[in-house]
Amino acid sequence: MLDIIDTKRNGHELTDEQIDFFISGVVDGSIEDYQISALLMAIYFQGMTAPEQTKLTMAMLNSGDRLDLSAIDGIKVDKHSTGGVGDKTSLPLAAMVAALGIPVPMISGRGLGHTGGTLDKLEAIPGYRVALSETEFIHQVQTIGLAIVGATGEIAPADARIYGLRDVTDTVDSIPLIASSILSKKLASGTDALVIDVKTGSGAFMREERDAQKLAHALVEIANQAGVKSMAIISDMNQPLGNKIGNSLEIEESIDVLKGKGPADLVDLVLTLGSQMVVLANQAPDLETARLMLEQTIKDGSALEKFKQMIIMQDGDPAVIDDYGVMPQAQYHIPIVAERDGIVTKIAADEMGIASMRLGGGRSAKDDQLDYAVGLVLHHKVGDKVRQGEPLVTVHSNQKEIDGVEKLIRANFIIGDQAPTMKLIHEVITK
Amino acid sequence: MLDIIDTKRNGHELTDEQIDFFISGVVDGSIEDYQISALLMAIYFQGMTAPEQTKLTMAMLNSGDRLDLSAIDGIKVDKHSTGGVGDKTSLPLAAMVAALGIPVPMISGRGLGHTGGTLDKLEAIPGYRVALSETEFIHQVQTIGLAIVGATGEIAPADARIYGLRDVTDTVDSIPLIASSILSKKLASGTDALVIDVKTGSGAFMREERDAQKLAHALVEIANQAGVKSMAIISDMNQPLGNKIGNSLEIEESIDVLKGKGPADLVDLVLTLGSQMVVLANQAPDLETARLMLEQTIKDGSALEKFKQMIIMQDGDPAVIDDYGVMPQAQYHIPIVAERDGIVTKIAADEMGIASMRLGGGRSAKDDQLDYAVGLVLHHKVGDKVRQGEPLVTVHSNQKEIDGVEKLIRANFIIGDQAPTMKLIHEVITK
Repeated sequence: MLDIIDTKRNGHELTDEQIDFFISGVVDGSIEDYQISALLMAIYFQGMTAPEQTKLTMAMLNSGDRLDLSAIDGIKVDKHSTGGVGDKTSLPLAAMVAALGIPVPMISGRGLGHTGGTLDKLEAIPGYRVALSETEFIHQVQTIGLAIVGATGEIAPADARIYGLRDVTDTVDSIPLIASSILSKKLASGTDALVIDVKTGSGAFMREERDAQKLAHALVEIANQAGVKSMAIISDMNQPLGNKIGNSLEIEESIDVLKGKGPADLVDLVLTLGSQMVVLANQAPDLETARLMLEQTIKDGSALEKFKQMIIMQDGDPAVIDDYGVMPQAQYHIPIVAERDGIVTKIAADEMGIASMRLGGGRSAKDDQLDYAVGLVLHHKVGDKVRQGEPLVTVHSNQKEIDGVEKLIRANFIIGDQAPTMKLIHEVITK
Repeated sequence: MLDIIDTKRNGHELTDEQIDFFISGVVDGSIEDYQISALLMAIYFQGMTAPEQTKLTMAMLNSGDRLDLSAIDGIKVDKHSTGGVGDKTSLPLAAMVAALGIPVPMISGRGLGHTGGTLDKLEAIPGYRVALSETEFIHQVQTIGLAIVGATGEIAPADARIYGLRDVTDTVDSIPLIASSILSKKLASGTDALVIDVKTGSGAFMREERDAQKLAHALVEIANQAGVKSMAIISDMNQPLGNKIGNSLEIEESIDVLKGKGPADLVDLVLTLGSQMVVLANQAPDLETARLMLEQTIKDGSALEKFKQMIIMQDGDPAVIDDYGVMPQAQYHIPIVAERDGIVTKIAADEMGIASMRLGGGRSAKDDQLDYAVGLVLHHKVGDKVRQGEPLVTVHSNQKEIDGVEKLIRANFIIGDQAPTMKLIHEVITK
């Protein structure tokens, strides 16, 4: 192990054998925490080459259980996002792609801190079961081409130990460590192709665009090297995505997209990522054709129908499609109004996520219980003109008293005179 | 602690409070090994400023016991060497300086690997006691102005824990960490002034001269900042120092120096370091005057007498002064002869140290027992002309069979046609 630390500390490439030795020692406990953390810090400073990153990812992936989806015909596609605020993209996206006959066996996660999680949102639908057995999961994808579930089995135990140490040794923000952590878990789903949405901006893990670019390229490179066809985009997370933040509220907005009534930014992101999935599944010759095909699934209602089929098969109440009221609803709807005329210049995504979390819509610790009903509805986005007295945000709360949250929202929903140029899709990375 | 790691990882200076927090957490166990090792690796990459190094040293020093030598009158001087092969400098040096009336309360260490230790050498003298109580130690320096002993009390426990981790996390060769480790222990002796001999070359910890320079400057800077007047030299450790390696053998050579019969390189080094000690003790206006004063202590026999007094007071057999045979003697004296005519071009110091260690004269592990009798006598040094069949080295062994050692010596005692220029004193650093 000392040799391995020395190799990396001195800026050399680790061999496959060294990486295998390291990861097996991480899993079986034969390598001590202090040697792991020394290596992590050396990797932080020296980085890793593309082959090293791929090898590390594969070793971590192979340290745990992997789903075998070979029983499902066709090129299976999945999507990963680095996490944002108001990011319910997976829900309409999966339904639209599946409506084109492309199998979407999607394994999702839960939210923590200011970012939400797809599983939490789905659980706002009464009865919806995210914990399917492997057999149920495969059967459902074979039957209707779509399932969104939580992970089963022990996924990448090496990552669990390394991630825990990174958190306490200040080695979280290292591209090779982030990329291998994400993909060792994501590739365990057994997908054939993967589309990655790397967020950048105040509400994103990668606040700086340059870091987001590096991560996106590393992820695409590693996934492709690992035999999983991959594309990525870099998308904006300076302001929340769409207009609704919160679990019930984000299911509403997702279904709105499938009904052709979604907000422009969310729809654009869904179509951009969806086009990549369709192309990777070899169902369209190019991104433009794929986009038109996806738009058609909204127009003809097939995507909405696919979403409904999924809800039914996962024991959720399909009435939600026509009546959002079957989901938990907040007791109080409290408007926050504009204090002056002007233009919206900033809606800090991270702070809006924290506001929703404080209402009970998110978790500050892993074991926190969620209140599915609460959240924020944004009536305006950056660049909109607003008039004094007009509502900017409606807070959905189960407490009447929301002084702290209101203060937080006011301080981070800024009205000024000139709006910055906002661009949702910063970059499309097809290779 | 995470903040502290982050500060250093990002290349910023640690505050005094951060360093104190770190060191007290190291000592009381409240900081985990993996966080210490992450910080050590960050220090390896980012370095430390002079004030940071001084603060770290002082915090480590204050983590343990410190000797109070205020009962001893005069400016007390000590010497530290980073360790070498055949380096018995401390022994004649301490006696010569003390013979000038300058108190020398010297705390020395033991050898490990290819480097020897002053305490081990002294123990070759029958009866010599290196473990004095603090009271005995102070009393002896008050009485005769000289004592050479091992450390008592718990010296720099923070260093003990950090050093253990550095060893297994590949963060040994970091100048700030080396310097603070050396001085946190050395300054615990309570000396007023300190002369430092930083070795460079194949037998030294700092093989590269550039690293030795950095370390020497860091040590002088920190010691001065800590209120201990300090000078340093950088001296050569490509070939062994003097002609004798081994414990009894090095006592012989040390006494030879005091009798005016020492080998030129050793005598030069003793006078160079001694001059600095005399100047730091304010007993001479300049290094040249100090050198003449020291030479006089050999000519008039006062240094030899001082050495004898020390042996007597520490329960050693003073007969050793006139009869080296009272020390353990090896059973076999085996010459290794020149295989060709030529010039000695290389005598690899580290390998000669290892040869002596393998004979039993040094330790490969901390608990190894020593054979004081064994070692090497070099009949030639680099640059000497030799003729085929002439002895190069006499191996003093207690085993008849020394094939492995002979092979090692032959491979590293090279006769060629042109000798490199060797310079003993590379640099004198007075500030």
